[in-house]
Amino acid sequence: MIIIGEKINSTLKAIRPAIERYDTKAIQELAVRQAEAGASYIDVNAGMFFKDELDRLEWLVKTVQEVVDIPLSIDSPNPLAIERGLKANKNGKPVINSITDEKERFEAVLPMVLEYNASVIALCMDDTGMPETEQDRVSIARRMIEKLTKAGVAPQDIFIDPLIRPIGTGSHYGRVALETMRIVKTEYPDVHVTCGLSNISFGIPERKLMNKTFLVAAVAAGMDGAILDPLDTKLMTFLYAAEALMGKDDFCMEYLTKYREGKLDV
Amino acid sequence: MIIIGEKINSTLKAIRPAIERYDTKAIQELAVRQAEAGASYIDVNAGMFFKDELDRLEWLVKTVQEVVDIPLSIDSPNPLAIERGLKANKNGKPVINSITDEKERFEAVLPMVLEYNASVIALCMDDTGMPETEQDRVSIARRMIEKLTKAGVAPQDIFIDPLIRPIGTGSHYGRVALETMRIVKTEYPDVHVTCGLSNISFGIPERKLMNKTFLVAAVAAGMDGAILDPLDTKLMTFLYAAEALMGKDDFCMEYLTKYREGKLDV
Repeated sequence: MIIIGEKINSTLKAIRPAIERYDTKAIQELAVRQAEAGASYIDVNAGMFFKDELDRLEWLVKTVQEVVDIPLSIDSPNPLAIERGLKANKNGKPVINSITDEKERFEAVLPMVLEYNASVIALCMDDTGMPETEQDRVSIARRMIEKLTKAGVAPQDIFIDPLIRPIGTGSHYGRVALETMRIVKTEYPDVHVTCGLSNISFGIPERKLMNKTFLVAAVAAGMDGAILDPLDTKLMTFLYAAEALMGKDDFCMEYLTKYREGKLDV
Repeated sequence: MIIIGEKINSTLKAIRPAIERYDTKAIQELAVRQAEAGASYIDVNAGMFFKDELDRLEWLVKTVQEVVDIPLSIDSPNPLAIERGLKANKNGKPVINSITDEKERFEAVLPMVLEYNASVIALCMDDTGMPETEQDRVSIARRMIEKLTKAGVAPQDIFIDPLIRPIGTGSHYGRVALETMRIVKTEYPDVHVTCGLSNISFGIPERKLMNKTFLVAAVAAGMDGAILDPLDTKLMTFLYAAEALMGKDDFCMEYLTKYREGKLDV
């Protein structure tokens, strides 16, 4: 599983003040702890600072790469902010979070994917908005994969994100997300499938229970990248179990190792 | 979800003594508690008593139906024991646990399914043994469904059980079981798909963690019957979450109700 550590994100209330006051120590500690907990990428997002997002994102990139070697996930809806992040990046091949099939955004982000030899998270939405059914999502995914690979992006550098909508707003949204993942992963085994987990539980009680449940179902559906909090030991425990269950962990070796290390938090 | 309460089973060390000493009170309490916890069927099994299984199974049937009205799951590999159980049954349409595609067993059990108008759990195995791949399992499932429906059994009276082998003995067995369920449920939407959960975790540590993980993945794969312990509140909590996630719980109403009743055990 490719884990994109989601903690350094200005939309998270607990973290935002640290970005606000340029708290190097707090940000670096979060980066190190996520890397130690198994993150493959550290996501950095300053999107809540509308006036100076670019400066703050650049600061996040520089601050994080002073203390960790793993690559970064440069996270913004704003192509200009992404560019600033990419320019500051020195930690190897980053992932751009994210592109969509909206014409303007696609055309602004694609050149950066190519110029910086980056991977890219591709959200299943286009200029008509967020699609309702799995077939509509899969169609957008197919279109983006085709356009990206035609432009020279390798399939293994693409992460398709079906876009998770809360089951509290529509009982079918869990199934839609999982089916989209399953179909995309089946059709394009080399393309990664990812998502931000926690949106699924927005507005319902016991969110962490639902997030764990969704994580397991998503791993079973073929998700091989996850934007999550690697410091959530209970969530990570279900990740280890799901990977062992799905045969992605030969002889359950990682599961058994985590058990012996006391890292199964049940 | 159709829940087959698995507690009254002579293979369970904690229960066996109660069957051994004909402890009416203990058995009836287990039956009532499982029914109250949401069981759709109460499974009764005396298979560990080789010498007098038939008498003990008959006693279990009579003892249980004195205190609960829900139907029974008559559980034995021995067709003669099944028949004794069926003869004693007064709690409405029972389920026979189980038939297989082994020639002798199939021919012995099928007439009882018809005579007693029972439902039946059909295990994916035949005279060549337990199949290794999902395709082999699906082939056996198709054959049994065809033979059973041709003989007059309604599709909704059939429960296909892919047979769960422990992931500790083969990393692929989780995926094989889940894929079998998914394919069977897709091809035969009216046929139920079920399994005994706990075999998946045999021989590995933190079995309850793995059982919960498997339950979620199985619900996502289309399992709509489960042989489990309804008194395991943590397991049931993941069942409620999985059903809400998969849109089998309109507007998350049951999930929210369980939450309000304090029955989400997180």
